[in-house]
Amino acid sequence: MQDIRYDVVGIGNAIVDIIGRCDDAFLARHGCAKGSMQLVDAAAVDRLYSAMGPGVEISGGSVANTMVGIASFGGKAGFIGKTADDDFGKIFGHDIRAAGVTFGTPAANGPEPTGRSLILVTPDGERTMNTFLGVSPHLGNGEVDAALISAARIVYLEGYLFDRPDAKAAFREAAAIAAKAGRQVALSLSDSFCVDRHRAEFLDLVRASVDILIANEAEITSLYETKSFDEAARRAQADTKLAVLTRSAKGSIILSDGKSVSVPAAPVAKVIDTTGAGDLYAAGFLFGIASGMDLESAGRLGSLAAAEIISHVGARPETALKELARANGLLS
Amino acid sequence: MQDIRYDVVGIGNAIVDIIGRCDDAFLARHGCAKGSMQLVDAAAVDRLYSAMGPGVEISGGSVANTMVGIASFGGKAGFIGKTADDDFGKIFGHDIRAAGVTFGTPAANGPEPTGRSLILVTPDGERTMNTFLGVSPHLGNGEVDAALISAARIVYLEGYLFDRPDAKAAFREAAAIAAKAGRQVALSLSDSFCVDRHRAEFLDLVRASVDILIANEAEITSLYETKSFDEAARRAQADTKLAVLTRSAKGSIILSDGKSVSVPAAPVAKVIDTTGAGDLYAAGFLFGIASGMDLESAGRLGSLAAAEIISHVGARPETALKELARANGLLS
Repeated sequence: MQDIRYDVVGIGNAIVDIIGRCDDAFLARHGCAKGSMQLVDAAAVDRLYSAMGPGVEISGGSVANTMVGIASFGGKAGFIGKTADDDFGKIFGHDIRAAGVTFGTPAANGPEPTGRSLILVTPDGERTMNTFLGVSPHLGNGEVDAALISAARIVYLEGYLFDRPDAKAAFREAAAIAAKAGRQVALSLSDSFCVDRHRAEFLDLVRASVDILIANEAEITSLYETKSFDEAARRAQADTKLAVLTRSAKGSIILSDGKSVSVPAAPVAKVIDTTGAGDLYAAGFLFGIASGMDLESAGRLGSLAAAEIISHVGARPETALKELARANGLLS
Repeated sequence: MQDIRYDVVGIGNAIVDIIGRCDDAFLARHGCAKGSMQLVDAAAVDRLYSAMGPGVEISGGSVANTMVGIASFGGKAGFIGKTADDDFGKIFGHDIRAAGVTFGTPAANGPEPTGRSLILVTPDGERTMNTFLGVSPHLGNGEVDAALISAARIVYLEGYLFDRPDAKAAFREAAAIAAKAGRQVALSLSDSFCVDRHRAEFLDLVRASVDILIANEAEITSLYETKSFDEAARRAQADTKLAVLTRSAKGSIILSDGKSVSVPAAPVAKVIDTTGAGDLYAAGFLFGIASGMDLESAGRLGSLAAAEIISHVGARPETALKELARANGLLS
């Protein structure tokens, strides 16, 4: 059996974010549901890009952001995801490696570009995403690196992968490798509309193959088709060994073995851009669990990382999370 | 004679900035002179990029930043500069147009990529630039748009263009078009090392063809090969109709017709990244002059724009400068 050399290995879409500001009227005019992630094709991304204001480009991708967060806490993280051999692919590969994450998926040479997400941030700090996946879903044979996955304590899977058949196959392959190696499988539900598109399959997965479920309020209530968060939480508790439900400023609830642990959100002077809040919560939580912490301590690391990320533009930490956690008495 | 439809049209390198943080030891290790701009080739830019930490990509280019600043003040600005048909070229073109600047130079389809500058920001906020020009200097026949230049009250030329023969030819062509149309010619000395490389030609230009000279302390003392700022200022006053000399926190001095006007720097809570400070000072000053303001008022707009730009990462304004100027009582 393979030695454990990583805390967490993630598999997800490799995306560069193009982040700009707009008002609510702009979202309405362009048919963007505020706070959501919608998939767009090449023509639509070009149209929206032409209409939006100046942008800033920062590497992104939900699970990729989480892996960078884990490395920033001092954890060992790896990432599997597909880029193209273009400027955006170079940006993605550079940034994730420079952050200390092991990333070896080869860049594709075909016509499809690296995935990108046009992220529109409204004055309240809420982010609305329009993602053109490009080459991202096309993980080829052998690119779901079995040795890497088997060497990780936890394998973290991005729900967004379900949106494309190739990526879904890669997701299932990764889950099977992790199960065979006896590793923990964690799943992010990613987005409430994504849950809506794949509810039955997600429910099967959650019940059969997932050790740690990570979701926000909109996602978990979508999964169980209820308006009641409490009911969704009860059902998640029945269906999973460990579920972490995040509720923005209301903090998070961690459900395990019939227990429920509430963790407050960490204070933020001003919310600048919520992009990556859930991704970085997951980073703190998974790093904590992989490090053998109790649930509440892991949740507090999650809250801290989420607070850091929403206090600036972009979903990659601007402060070393390890130092931040030490300064807050959460790591020694 | 052509009508004036623009306040300022600029010609310069079309660059996307890749901005990361490092310590002074990193600069020393990689042979970067702190605070300078050095030109690097493709291999060197790859080497340095591999060594540096995660980056953020934001459109840049010295005179391009100035044109965006002028548009942000509510002025009419145009830009001439060369990009390639790649991701960085699309970013550059999108951002400058989205900022309201007229930009029509066609993107090249050849093997050379869009120019990029690796900008390393040290903890004191100082920026050190390593620029790979790529396709930027190769402005072709007819791309120095005579109609655009002739329609501008002021034509603003980037000293950096002197670093490549094609770009220097474009620079001289633009200056000749402006002179023929009876427009004002403004020149940025760009960088002290750039001045060092082209001192004699810059001196000839300043004496013969430049109406407004914009330089910082290091550049003007390099031009006159003196350690004394006062001596450099006296000589600049003798050689030019209007010279603007910026001195970071010490503010700026505007010299014209035997007069000298001192303008203080605007207050900044914390210097985050000095990238673009000179570019944005130039934006405020040139907008003020093009709008018929007196020298001191124009200088105050320059100080205000410089203060905005150094209070965040990147050389493109994050606040509408028109609103900022109104809030500070500098525009009605």
